[in-house]
Amino acid sequence: MVEQVTIVLPQFPRGFHLITHIIEDNLPALPEKGIVHIFIQHTSAGLTLNENADPTVRTDFETVFNRLVPESASNYIHTFEGLDDMPAHIKSSLVGQSVTIPISNHRLNLGTWQGVYLCEFRNYGGKRRIVMTIVS
Amino acid sequence: MVEQVTIVLPQFPRGFHLITHIIEDNLPALPEKGIVHIFIQHTSAGLTLNENADPTVRTDFETVFNRLVPESASNYIHTFEGLDDMPAHIKSSLVGQSVTIPISNHRLNLGTWQGVYLCEFRNYGGKRRIVMTIVS
Amino acid sequence: MVEQVTIVLPQFPRGFHLITHIIEDNLPALPEKGIVHIFIQHTSAGLTLNENADPTVRTDFETVFNRLVPESASNYIHTFEGLDDMPAHIKSSLVGQSVTIPISNHRLNLGTWQGVYLCEFRNYGGKRRIVMTIVS
Repeated sequence: MVEQVTIVLPQFPRGFHLITHIIEDNLPALPEKGIVHIFIQHTSAGLTLNENADPTVRTDFETVFNRLVPESASNYIHTFEGLDDMPAHIKSSLVGQSVTIPISNHRLNLGTWQGVYLCEFRNYGGKRRIVMTIVS
Repeated sequence: MVEQVTIVLPQFPRGFHLITHIIEDNLPALPEKGIVHIFIQHTSAGLTLNENADPTVRTDFETVFNRLVPESASNYIHTFEGLDDMPAHIKSSLVGQSVTIPISNHRLNLGTWQGVYLCEFRNYGGKRRIVMTIVS
Repeated sequence: MVEQVTIVLPQFPRGFHLITHIIEDNLPALPEKGIVHIFIQHTSAGLTLNENADPTVRTDFETVFNRLVPESASNYIHTFEGLDDMPAHIKSSLVGQSVTIPISNHRLNLGTWQGVYLCEFRNYGGKRRIVMTIVS
């Protein structure tokens, strides 16, 4: 059985943001077991799972990703949408544009420290669309 | 319900290539909703989703990935298959070897700017096999 | 149809480890076709697919990931769990915390050279939990 829900996130500033609560609040009643596929329909943002407690982890993510994929004009041909655009595309493919999470006992079966991160790689990324598909 | 299709891509040169049309042309009629899992059976190539319009984005991807994982002999022990081999393995795990896309209204529910990239990390990677599984 | 199995791995040392045999030994009889989603419930380890033959590939993975995300105190705010902790979180999101593999003819349909890697990014990561979900 398949259920599907599309949501539009409010605009987030550039950075890594914990959105587990938004995901959970927008899912329908979950089946006893299965998987949920959470997919962002964009190429300059991403989704990943990581530490859900200490906010400095998200700050460090932003620092490290900026160091891995620096924003200097000399590095890129594709610059007409701004210097943050091409690095955003690369970062999006490094973290990926979807996460899949097991469902067990009618709940997302995340580990104790796992949360869903929205990775907003643009300075002004606008509202992002997410398609969630539950398979059971 | 599960359907599965295996395809063999023609040989592509090293680089990032938009293959959305090949994927779509080889999928059977899609269900109303579900997911499709697209899996490349190789460890020196990858699949990712990214910008489907401006070809300079794919050129910049090649430049950035070569900078992230440089091809110098002194960096690696595993070199007997050529200097492009070990970097290809690393890059393959950075982008990943599969993408999962939601199906909605009998179509791949990609965002406006999302396309499927074949990431060919070898100089002469040969023909690559892809297994597509539709779950609905 | 959905089946689900949770396993606890023995503690592995820091590094990349081939665990295909552990995965296969713990899966139930597989359906004719489908997918299996393999999910690690942690944020300082990861799962990826890569070369299953030459152990120097896994050694080179460890070297390259340490170079990509260096362990120096000046790079991070989040350091109170040790200098290996924050790099482990980043690496975990670079490789990802799950892999999905097609099932064909009642077997994991991996390519000839593909194996499942446990990526243990902590010096002392402890026992890691993995949730495997079979969808058919």
